[in-house]
Formats: sequence, structure tokens, C-alpha cells
Amino acid sequence: MQTLDCIMGRQSIRRFRDRPVEREVLDRILEAGMAGPSCINARDWYFVAVTDHEVLVRMADANGVPARCLKHAPLGILVCGDLERAFPPARDYWVIDCSIACQNMVLAARDLGVGSVWLGTWPQMERVKAQRDLLHLPSHLVPHSILAMGYPAGDLDRERPQDFEEDKVLFV
Amino acid sequence: MQTLDCIMGRQSIRRFRDRPVEREVLDRILEAGMAGPSCINARDWYFVAVTDHEVLVRMADANGVPARCLKHAPLGILVCGDLERAFPPARDYWVIDCSIACQNMVLAARDLGVGSVWLGTWPQMERVKAQRDLLHLPSHLVPHSILAMGYPAGDLDRERPQDFEEDKVLFV
Repeated sequence: MQTLDCIMGRQSIRRFRDRPVEREVLDRILEAGMAGPSCINARDWYFVAVTDHEVLVRMADANGVPARCLKHAPLGILVCGDLERAFPPARDYWVIDCSIACQNMVLAARDLGVGSVWLGTWPQMERVKAQRDLLHLPSHLVPHSILAMGYPAGDLDRERPQDFEEDKVLFV
Repeated sequence: MQTLDCIMGRQSIRRFRDRPVEREVLDRILEAGMAGPSCINARDWYFVAVTDHEVLVRMADANGVPARCLKHAPLGILVCGDLERAFPPARDYWVIDCSIACQNMVLAARDLGVGSVWLGTWPQMERVKAQRDLLHLPSHLVPHSILAMGYPAGDLDRERPQDFEEDKVLFV
């Protein structure tokens, strides 16, 4: 799929077919997550790729109502920041670096026919703590976002409204 | 360009040809920035697209040594978070929403033949304040990142090393 089409046609997919995401597809998605820029190339992220249904259900319960769809997804990827690798003078760049990894994975997945929805975790700290406890992550790994993924049950390519907002741009 | 090729071949471009980025190309890049997901669809970003050379020089001086290349770029896009539109229970989602907008623009630009480099502003608060003061932005707009852009002086498509890190993934 052409890049601009992929970006412009993106939509959140919350209903998935009963079909696993193949390991080689998952690996390409993860690889895309690792291909973005990061502050001083710190690569300060860590990925938890979950296909175990029971664990996905518990992750959903730990992440608020909008995460319900994770209970019926074949795959969830929890992206975490790694504070041990973050840029020491300004560690909060990890938030940006993880966001880049997530968006790359959303787009790569779409290119591979896999739909996704982005489930916010950070900065809602009760969710951050709940995911960390559930997955027994060390304290230097900060849960950032969960991507629920799977082959879409609906149509991936239906049109979405144009929403360019001229008044959101200042030209200097 | 195919999406996965665009993602995997991305590289930071810091040297630009002496050629402006056409307004229609800029508009497509900005449109891509507005096409990403945002928390509860808040669309809590604001873009300052700068082509004025004097302003670009001052933005570079206000953003630390790594931003030097902005002095020789035909275009800089400052992405800001809009706290008035951010999700009130957890406003810091604006950081993620702006990061998504930036990465979409980096990829869209590459698809259109335009190179870019991401210059970090937030969370280095002296840079945030300096950009806000320089551009006379109201206090609810928080400078997040600057993308320096232009047609690359070098080769956009040279190979970069593979850097998939197996030990950065936990499979559950």
C-alpha cells in the first residue's frame, strides 16, 4: 500500500476475525516499531507481544473501558519505555520515542492487512501500574500504550471523512 | 512508495537542496499530520509552518546545537500541543498525539521526496519556552518538536543497517 494512502486511510479497528496474526507478520510489525527515530538513538522502548487469551483479558480489565476490544483480539502489543536507556538529561523523551514506535507499528500493520486500535495507558498512572504488576515488569519499564491487533472483521478501506483543519496551521 | 519501505528506509536528513518545498506538498504533509489518532479524537495539536529564513535561524538558535541544520532548511514545522483541547482527565496525552502527528509527517514527507530530521524540543523546558516566546504563542500552546524539512542534498535511499533487537521483545 502506498504510504500516503496508508496514513490517510487509517482508522481504528476494534472487531477482529478469529484468525491469529502469523509470527512472521508480527515480526515485521515489531521491526517497523524499532525503525523509527529515538532521542540520541537511545532506542528506549521494550515490547510485550501477547497472544495468550487469558492474559489479554486481564490486560483489558486493567486498562479501562475503552480497552474492552482487547478481550477479543488475537494480539496485543504493550509498548513500554525503558528508563534505563532514556536520555539522562531529559528522560521524558521516552514518551515520544514509544509513540513513534507505536505509530510505525499501526501503519506497518495496516500495510500487512492487520487492523489495530491504540489503547492509551500512560499518562493514566493507575493503568501504568496495573499493566506493570500484571506482567511482572521491572520498575524501569513504563507501560506506555497497548495496540490491539488482528485481521479486521469489517472493511479496512471504507472512506473516512476528510478533516484537514486550516485554522490549525500558522504559516510564517 | 510502499509503506513498509518508507518506514524501514527512513533516515534523518540534515542537508537540503536550495529548493523550496511547494505549498501543495506542504499541505499534503500537514494533512498527514492531522490524520493520526488522538486521545478521544481531541486533535490537540497546532502547527507552525515556517519558511522565513530569519525566523528559521532564530528557531535553530533557540533549540540547542542539534538544531543547527534548521538554519539551512527551506522549511521547519513546529508542532505544538493545545492544552485547551487536550483530554481533561489526563492532559499529557497531548505529548503522544503530537508525536503521532510528527511521525506521520516524517513518513508522508519521505513519500513525497522530502527529507526531514526531528529536532526535540519538549521535554527540555528551556527550549519549549524559547520557541513559545520567539513565535509569540499563547500559553496553552506547548512547543513539542520541530521537523526540519527540505529536498535532500544527499541520497535519500541509501541502505541503513538492520537493527531488529530480539532481546527487546517479550512474547507472552
